[in-house]
Amino acid sequence: MTEIKSIAIIGSGRIAHHLAPAFYKKGIEIKGIFGRHLTEVKALASRVNSKIIEDISQQIHADLVIIAVSDDAIHRVASDLSKSNEGLIVHTSGAVAMKAIPDVFRRGVMYPLQSFSPDKNIVWNNVPFCLEAENDADLNLLGSLAELLSQRVYILNSDQRKNLHLAAVFANNFANLMFEMSEELLEKNEIDRTILHPLIVETANKLLMQKASKSQTGPAARGDEETIRAHRELLGDDNTYREVYDLLTREIHNRNHG
Amino acid sequence: MTEIKSIAIIGSGRIAHHLAPAFYKKGIEIKGIFGRHLTEVKALASRVNSKIIEDISQQIHADLVIIAVSDDAIHRVASDLSKSNEGLIVHTSGAVAMKAIPDVFRRGVMYPLQSFSPDKNIVWNNVPFCLEAENDADLNLLGSLAELLSQRVYILNSDQRKNLHLAAVFANNFANLMFEMSEELLEKNEIDRTILHPLIVETANKLLMQKASKSQTGPAARGDEETIRAHRELLGDDNTYREVYDLLTREIHNRNHG
Repeated sequence: MTEIKSIAIIGSGRIAHHLAPAFYKKGIEIKGIFGRHLTEVKALASRVNSKIIEDISQQIHADLVIIAVSDDAIHRVASDLSKSNEGLIVHTSGAVAMKAIPDVFRRGVMYPLQSFSPDKNIVWNNVPFCLEAENDADLNLLGSLAELLSQRVYILNSDQRKNLHLAAVFANNFANLMFEMSEELLEKNEIDRTILHPLIVETANKLLMQKASKSQTGPAARGDEETIRAHRELLGDDNTYREVYDLLTREIHNRNHG
Repeated sequence: MTEIKSIAIIGSGRIAHHLAPAFYKKGIEIKGIFGRHLTEVKALASRVNSKIIEDISQQIHADLVIIAVSDDAIHRVASDLSKSNEGLIVHTSGAVAMKAIPDVFRRGVMYPLQSFSPDKNIVWNNVPFCLEAENDADLNLLGSLAELLSQRVYILNSDQRKNLHLAAVFANNFANLMFEMSEELLEKNEIDRTILHPLIVETANKLLMQKASKSQTGPAARGDEETIRAHRELLGDDNTYREVYDLLTREIHNRNHG
C-alpha cells in the first residue's frame, strides 16, 4: 500500500463529524461509520456517501480505521475490533498512548490539536496534526493523509503527545480562565468587557513573533511592589482571585528577579 | 476653550515617545517637553518641532499638560508644577487616582490601555483611551482629543480605572505566563513551540465573539478526572507547574461543576 484511499470511522462525535466530511472532500472514500447514536450516524454517513457499520467485531475493509471516541472508551473499542482487520488502526486522542490499541494491529495515532465546536467550521489548513505509528512506512501513510488537510504535520511519540496535551491546558484552558476572571472584574465594576480585547489580541500576536517569556510586562515583571500591594488590597482576602493573583505574581516575579 | 490645540509633555519615556508624535501628526502643537534624560528629550522635541522645558516650576502655556512619568513620580511632579498653570493637567496611569494631581489644577486622566514597546509602532486607532476629569467640559475636551487618535474612548472614574488595570494583569500578564509555562513544557519535551499557536489564536479570537466563560473546554471543565490525574502525575510534586495546575484546575472545576 502506498497511500490511504479509504477510511472507516468509529464514533459519531465532534471529531468524526468534522474529520469525515473533510477527508471525503479530498477524495478519500469513507467506507463505513459506526456510532452509538444511530440518528447522528445516519446523518453523517449520508453526508459522506458512506455505509453504516453495524458490528465492529466484523472485519472492516478500509486502509485506515479511525477510532474517534472518548479517551476512556478507546481501549475497549480497539479491543472489540476483529483481529482480521488489515488496515492501520489509529485513535485521535492527545492524552491516550498508542499502546491503548492492541499490538495485534498495525496501530498509530492521528491527533488533530484543535478545540472542536459542533457548529463551527474548522480551517483545517492550520490545524496541527500529531502523528505516531510503529514504523516509517505507516508514518508516511498517515503523513500523506494528514497533509491533504493541513500544512502543519508533526511526528510525536506518546510521551511527547501527553506533554503537548498538558501544555495545551496551560495555553488554552488556563489562559482562558485568566480571560474569564478578567471579564468578571470588569463586569463587577461596570466596565465594558470589550475594552481589553485589543490588548488580548496584541498579547496573542506577540507570541507568534517571539517567546512568551520575552514579552512579559506588568507590575510583577517590573518588580513594582507598590502596584502589587494596591492590587492585593483591591482584591481583598480569602478569595480565588487573590489566591491566583498571589501565586502567579510570585511566579512572574521569580522568573524576572529570581 | 472649545478644543485642545496645544500640549506640553512631562516625561520622555515610552508613553511620551509614542504620544507626542501621534498628536503632532494630527495637527496639535507640542509646546514643550520636559524629561530627566536630555538626549532623549532633545531627540523627541526635534521630531515634534517642540521646545524643551527646562524648569517645570515655571508657568507652562499649553491647553493640556500630560504628565507621562512613572506611577510613583506622578504626585511629586504634579506638585512641582506652577500653580499659575491654566491648562488641564492629566496623568496617563492606569493605577494612580486622579487626585494624585493637586486640586488647585483643572485635572484629569488620559490612560491609553496598551503595552508600549519602544521599538514598535502603535496602531492608535484601536487603543482604548480611558478618560477622567472633574467636569463635563474638561471630559469633552479630552474626549475630542483622544478621538483624534482612537475610536475606542471610554470614561472611567479612578476606582474603575484601578480595577481595569487589575483586570488587565489577569488578561495580559497572567495569560502570558500561561503561554510561557506552556512553551517551557513543550521545550522540555523537544516539541516545536509553534505547534500551539493556532490554538492560542483561536482562543483569543473566540473571546471577541463571546464571553470567555462560554468557551472554556478541557479536562477540568469536562470533569475528566482520569486526564487530570494523568496530568498531575506527569507534572510531579512540589513545583510551580503543579501548584498552578492544581489551583486553576480546581477553579475551572468549581465554575463548571460547583
